[in-house]
Amino acid sequence: MTTEDTLLNGRVRLRQPERGLRAGHDAVLLAASIPAKPGQAVLEAGCGTGAVFLCLLARIPGLRVTAIERDPGLAALARENAALNGWADQVTVLEADITDPALRPTLPPIAHAFANPPYWPAGTRPPESIRANATHAEDTPLTAWTSLLAHRLARLGSLTLILPAARLADGIAALTTAHCGSHTLLPLWPRPGQAAKRILLAARHHGRSPARVLPGLALHDGDGTAEAVLREGAGLGM
Amino acid sequence: MTTEDTLLNGRVRLRQPERGLRAGHDAVLLAASIPAKPGQAVLEAGCGTGAVFLCLLARIPGLRVTAIERDPGLAALARENAALNGWADQVTVLEADITDPALRPTLPPIAHAFANPPYWPAGTRPPESIRANATHAEDTPLTAWTSLLAHRLARLGSLTLILPAARLADGIAALTTAHCGSHTLLPLWPRPGQAAKRILLAARHHGRSPARVLPGLALHDGDGTAEAVLREGAGLGM
Repeated sequence: MTTEDTLLNGRVRLRQPERGLRAGHDAVLLAASIPAKPGQAVLEAGCGTGAVFLCLLARIPGLRVTAIERDPGLAALARENAALNGWADQVTVLEADITDPALRPTLPPIAHAFANPPYWPAGTRPPESIRANATHAEDTPLTAWTSLLAHRLARLGSLTLILPAARLADGIAALTTAHCGSHTLLPLWPRPGQAAKRILLAARHHGRSPARVLPGLALHDGDGTAEAVLREGAGLGM
Repeated sequence: MTTEDTLLNGRVRLRQPERGLRAGHDAVLLAASIPAKPGQAVLEAGCGTGAVFLCLLARIPGLRVTAIERDPGLAALARENAALNGWADQVTVLEADITDPALRPTLPPIAHAFANPPYWPAGTRPPESIRANATHAEDTPLTAWTSLLAHRLARLGSLTLILPAARLADGIAALTTAHCGSHTLLPLWPRPGQAAKRILLAARHHGRSPARVLPGLALHDGDGTAEAVLREGAGLGM
């Protein structure tokens, strides 16, 4: 059973399973953070139903998207959603596990890469309804994600992850291991004055610039910035 | 030539060289972040004239401080400042280079460790007036600081650094290399909405808890929080 929902104030249509992990703020925020320019090639690992790349296509014209999803049902939905929004020609969904060595030779060169990797902490298990979809079970280390994403990434191309704040140190280490430096942290505050639950963490392939800790975004701040990103499709300027 | 200044609204007296690197907000903020309890033993590496441990002693009664400083003039001033504030019995200043292997057997077991390490980025040089004091020239890698600080640190004892935000990734890596986990980041915002220039970065020896990204402190926020820390000696609750 699938439902059809919308993101970005109706600019993106998204068919997704009625049960299981459903797209939300994380997908929109990750898409808002990618510093891509019109016409560039980008790679998403673990795309699910395509919410992230669809939001990115809504903001930046003419991108060429390669997206990887190992769940056959979700990969099919991601293709269907690309077509539903009129971007079928710009999107290639590869049904594959990111740790499969046979995947690498099939990847095109890319300018930017991104993922919303699984985030159930090791030792805990997601609810059965989510485990059925498999995409967010913590069974692949972060270094496997960053290694795959950096494989064909241009020099100084961006690699961006959205992660639980709990994985700050793991995330930075995994980016560094994949030869990505010039780290940028953008905390996502539930409200002003509360610790971040989620973070956007970006780095540049072979980058050597100083790290940056940006002011971040308060998701319920009342000043309209979060609203502009989550509903109007504004970029986050990372 | 030395001057006598005060910190924490006059609660700490500090004699320091008239020229060179002088104590300021960094020292007060680092001292405010240490989660020590009365009577515990703590270690500071690179104490300069002692501003950090003096501010910490002003907040937490009965601490026993071991402080390391390689510059003989600064080490002598640190001892003089401890006496000037009535804490000579609680403070031992060791004149030593943190990379000297002979230093390690002389260190006591400690509950908490901290440093404000040098922060001129590699490849740049501080002004001559500061270079003369040597304490902030970037000639010792961060891993040497964290390794020394963690050497006698209790299990789950804190190791805290104040660093330029530019060194976020280096700092986390150096803490991890010294077997310190459970990382906590507290950004220091110049003003709300501006990227952090400095960060407080803490970890726990052999800690395995989730990382935390705290809301941080806006140094010119107008709401009184920074004022309470910088002038009234409030703790930062890291």
